[in-house]
Amino acid sequence: MAFQNPVIKELVNKLRVLWALDHASALMGWDAETYMPREGIQERAIAQSELAVLKQKIILSPEIRRLVEKAEKQEDLNDYEKGIIRVVKRNIEKALKVPPEVIAEYARISQEATQYWRVAKEKNDFNIFKPYLEKIVKLARKIADYLGWEEHPYDALLDLFEEGLRTRDVDRIFGYLEPRIRRILEKIMSSGKYPAEHELEKIRYDPDKLRIVNKKILEILAFPLGSRARLDESAHPFTQSMGIKDVRITTRYEGFDFKRSILSVVHEFGHALYQLQIDERLMVTPIGNGVSLGIHEGQSRFWENIIGRSKEFAEVLTPLLKQYLDFLKDYDAEDIYYYFNTVRPSLIRTEADEVTYNLHILLRAKLEKQLLTEEIKVDELPEIWNQYMEDLIGVRPRNYSEGVLQDIHWSMGSIGYFPTYTLGNLVAAQMRHHLLKDMPDLYEKIRNKEYRPIQEWQREKIHRWGSTYAPKELLRKAFGEEYEAKYFIEYLEWKYLQ
Amino acid sequence: MAFQNPVIKELVNKLRVLWALDHASALMGWDAETYMPREGIQERAIAQSELAVLKQKIILSPEIRRLVEKAEKQEDLNDYEKGIIRVVKRNIEKALKVPPEVIAEYARISQEATQYWRVAKEKNDFNIFKPYLEKIVKLARKIADYLGWEEHPYDALLDLFEEGLRTRDVDRIFGYLEPRIRRILEKIMSSGKYPAEHELEKIRYDPDKLRIVNKKILEILAFPLGSRARLDESAHPFTQSMGIKDVRITTRYEGFDFKRSILSVVHEFGHALYQLQIDERLMVTPIGNGVSLGIHEGQSRFWENIIGRSKEFAEVLTPLLKQYLDFLKDYDAEDIYYYFNTVRPSLIRTEADEVTYNLHILLRAKLEKQLLTEEIKVDELPEIWNQYMEDLIGVRPRNYSEGVLQDIHWSMGSIGYFPTYTLGNLVAAQMRHHLLKDMPDLYEKIRNKEYRPIQEWQREKIHRWGSTYAPKELLRKAFGEEYEAKYFIEYLEWKYLQ
Repeated sequence: MAFQNPVIKELVNKLRVLWALDHASALMGWDAETYMPREGIQERAIAQSELAVLKQKIILSPEIRRLVEKAEKQEDLNDYEKGIIRVVKRNIEKALKVPPEVIAEYARISQEATQYWRVAKEKNDFNIFKPYLEKIVKLARKIADYLGWEEHPYDALLDLFEEGLRTRDVDRIFGYLEPRIRRILEKIMSSGKYPAEHELEKIRYDPDKLRIVNKKILEILAFPLGSRARLDESAHPFTQSMGIKDVRITTRYEGFDFKRSILSVVHEFGHALYQLQIDERLMVTPIGNGVSLGIHEGQSRFWENIIGRSKEFAEVLTPLLKQYLDFLKDYDAEDIYYYFNTVRPSLIRTEADEVTYNLHILLRAKLEKQLLTEEIKVDELPEIWNQYMEDLIGVRPRNYSEGVLQDIHWSMGSIGYFPTYTLGNLVAAQMRHHLLKDMPDLYEKIRNKEYRPIQEWQREKIHRWGSTYAPKELLRKAFGEEYEAKYFIEYLEWKYLQ
Repeated sequence: MAFQNPVIKELVNKLRVLWALDHASALMGWDAETYMPREGIQERAIAQSELAVLKQKIILSPEIRRLVEKAEKQEDLNDYEKGIIRVVKRNIEKALKVPPEVIAEYARISQEATQYWRVAKEKNDFNIFKPYLEKIVKLARKIADYLGWEEHPYDALLDLFEEGLRTRDVDRIFGYLEPRIRRILEKIMSSGKYPAEHELEKIRYDPDKLRIVNKKILEILAFPLGSRARLDESAHPFTQSMGIKDVRITTRYEGFDFKRSILSVVHEFGHALYQLQIDERLMVTPIGNGVSLGIHEGQSRFWENIIGRSKEFAEVLTPLLKQYLDFLKDYDAEDIYYYFNTVRPSLIRTEADEVTYNLHILLRAKLEKQLLTEEIKVDELPEIWNQYMEDLIGVRPRNYSEGVLQDIHWSMGSIGYFPTYTLGNLVAAQMRHHLLKDMPDLYEKIRNKEYRPIQEWQREKIHRWGSTYAPKELLRKAFGEEYEAKYFIEYLEWKYLQ
C-alpha cells in the first residue's frame, strides 16, 4: 500500500471521481483527434467544457478542502502521501486564485483566436490575428497577477506548465546554451560532416508500408500494443494516457520524408513509456501521472534523439527499412544515420534538428517575457521575430506564415509553455549522462535491441514515481541535481564535433 | 426555439452537465467494445462506476429538484417543455425510490453473475450460475417493490426498460401473437416454400471483401459516414450515440454466413437513423434521445426485416454482392432473398428468423413473470425452459448452453428487458402498415434505392421527437393507436403465406 494514513486514504478515495472525469476528458480528447466523425466536434466541445467546470466545482468543494486541510496536519506522512497533498493543494490554489469568469473569458478568447490564427497563417496576414493576440497577452498578464509572482510575471505562467520553474531558471539555462549552441552550429556547418539536407527527404513512400515498419519498431521497443497501448493516426502526433494501463500514441503519414513519421513514433513511445511505468499503486490517484511537461518531454526526447537518432539505432532500423521501402536498396546504416541527423539553420521550429531546436525556443521565451511586461508590443512582434531569427539562427522569414504565425500555441493561450520543450532536451541529455555511468555499454545495448534494461533504469529513476515529487525534487532524487544544461552541450559536442 | 419558459430553460441549462456525463459514458462504452487495449478495462470500469454515482448525486441535488418542482407549476408549457419535466421527474423518482445501497448491491452481484454465467455456459453447468441467478431474481423483486407496482411486480421492471409498458400489455400482445405465429409457422413448414436452411450459411467469405460491401450498403442508405457517423467492429454489433451529430454502429465478421454481418449493419443503421434524425433543437437536453428500447428496436427491425429482408432489397444488393463475393456467381436475387429468409424452429434466439423470434421472447417473458412471483423457482428453471421450448417451438435443447444459459441478459440483471425486442418487431410492422398508406409505392422505392423519402417519413412520425412523448403517446400521435400486434401477423401472412 502506497498510502497508510487514514485521512490521506479518505482524501484519495474522495478524489477518485476527479480522476474519472480526467479519464473521460482524456478519452474525449483522444477520440476527437482520431476517430470522431467531423460534425461531432460541436457536442464534444460542449461536453468537454461542462466537465471542466464540474471538475473545478468538485476540487473547490468544502468537503475536499476540509480534508486537504486535515491531511496537512497529519504527521509522519510518507513521500506518496506528501505528493498527494502537494498536487491537490496546487490544483485548489490555482482554481481559487483566478476568478472563474477570467478563466472562462480566456477559454473563449483562445477558441476564437485559434480560428483567426488559422486564417491569418493561411493568408499570411498578421493583422487578422493581432487583436486576438493582444487580448491573450493582456489576459495572460492578468492571470499571472492573480496567481501571484515574486520576480517576474512570467514566473506565474511558467509554473502552470512546469511546477516550480522560474524565469531565472529559464534565463540561466538559455544564457548558458545560446553561445555554446551557436559555436557548435558554426563548427558543424563549416565542417560539412553533417549534411544540411538529404535526398531522402523528398522521396515519396507508401504509407501502408510505413505503417508496418512503425508497428515493427514498436514491437522491437516492447511497446504493449493491444494489451496496454495503441498506435493510431492524427493530424499532429500526440500521446494520450487514460491511466496506467491504457496509453495511446499517434503518428502521421505525410507521404514523403519518412523519418518524420518514424521519429514521431519513437518520440511518442517515450512519452507513453513514462505513463506505462508509473507504480501501479498510484493508479486512480492524483499522483498517478507524469509530473510535468518538461520531465515528460525529457522521456520522449530521450527516445527520439538520444536513442532514435543514434548510429546504433540506425543499424537496428536499416534492415527493417530496406525490407519494406524499396527505394532504400542502395542505402546503408550510415546513410540512414546522416539522413536522420541533418543540421541546418531553418525557419520552422517543428522541422528543426536537435542542434538548432533550442534557439527557436529561446526566441519564443524571450518574446513571451517581453510581451508580458510590455517591453515589446504585439504590434512590433513580427518585425522583432524576424530580427531575432536573423540574429540567433541566421535566417530571415520571407513572410509571417513561416515567421511569427508558425505556431498554434499562443493562439491557444499557452504562454509559458515553450520552455518545457528545451527542458525536455536538457533532461534527455542529463539522463543519457547518468545512464552511461550506470550502463557504460548503453550503445552496445541499443545496437543489440536490448531496450528492457534501459527502460528499467528509467522506471527506477523517474517513471515509477508519477507526480510523487515536484520536478526539481525528482531530478535531485534521481541525479543529485536540478535542470542542468551542460550535459546537453556535452552531448552535442560528442555527437557532432568528435 | 423548442423551449420558451424561463424556468424550463434554466432547468435544461442546469442539466447540461448530466448530458455531458452521459456523453462521456457513451464514448467510454463504445471505446471499451472497439479500440480500448485489453488491460484498460480495469481503469475504465472504475471510471464508469464513479461517473454513474456522480450522475445520481447530481440528479438528486436540491438545486435540480427545486427547479423541477417549480417547472411543474408552470402553465402553458409546450410539448417539448412537458417532455423535459416528464423525463427528468422519471429519473429523479427512479433514483429516489431505490436505496443507493440496493443499486450498488445489484451492480456488484450482476458483475459477478456475468462472470459465472460465462463459465456456466462454457461448462454447460447450470449449477454454477444458479446461486447468482437466485440472488438476482430476489433483488429484482425487491427493486420492483421499492419502485412500486399495482397489478404485478413485473410492471415495475418492464417500466424501467419501456416507459409505461405493463404486464397486461405484454400478456395481451403475446396472447394475440402465440396462436397466430404457431399457425403461420406450421403452414410455412408444411408448404416448403421457404427453406429451413440454405447452403450459403456454410460458405466462408473474405472479411475484407465484406467490409467493402458493408460500406457500400451504408452509402446506398445515405449513412453519413465520416461526417456524423462511423462503422466499426466489435464482438457483438451495437449502436452508440454520442449525441445527435455523432452516432456510431458496429458489426462483426464471423467468416461464414455473410448475411449475419450485412443484416447487422442494416439493423444498427436503423437504430442510428433514429438518433441522427432527432430535432437538432433537442441537442444537449434530456429529451434529445430515442424514447425507449421498444421504439428504438422498431426502427432497427424496420430496416433489418421490412426493408433488408425484402425481395426488392435483395435485388438492390445482389449485383453488389456478386461484385465482391465470387462464390455468388451462380446465384440471383431470388436466391439471395430466400437465403435471407430461411424459416426454422431453432434453439438459439439470436439466430431465429422473424417468424419464430417472438416465440423465444414469449418464453422468456413468461419465465421472468413467474420467477418474480415465485410461481417457479430458479431450481426448476432449466427443465421448465426445455419444456416450454418444446411446447412453443417444437425443439428441445440437448444441453443448458443452448437452453437456459444461452442469453447474457439475466446475468446482467436485465429482467424485463426481453419484451422490448418483441415490441420492436410490432412497431416495425406497424410502421410498414402506415407507411404503405402514405407511400403505396414503398417497395418500388426500395427497389429504386430511393431511401430518403422513407427516412423523411420516419423522421416526421417518430424520430424528430426524441423523448418528447412517452412511447405510447408517441405511437398515438403518429398512428392513432398504441402497440398493436395485428400488423405484425398481417405482415407475416402477406410475406410468407401469399
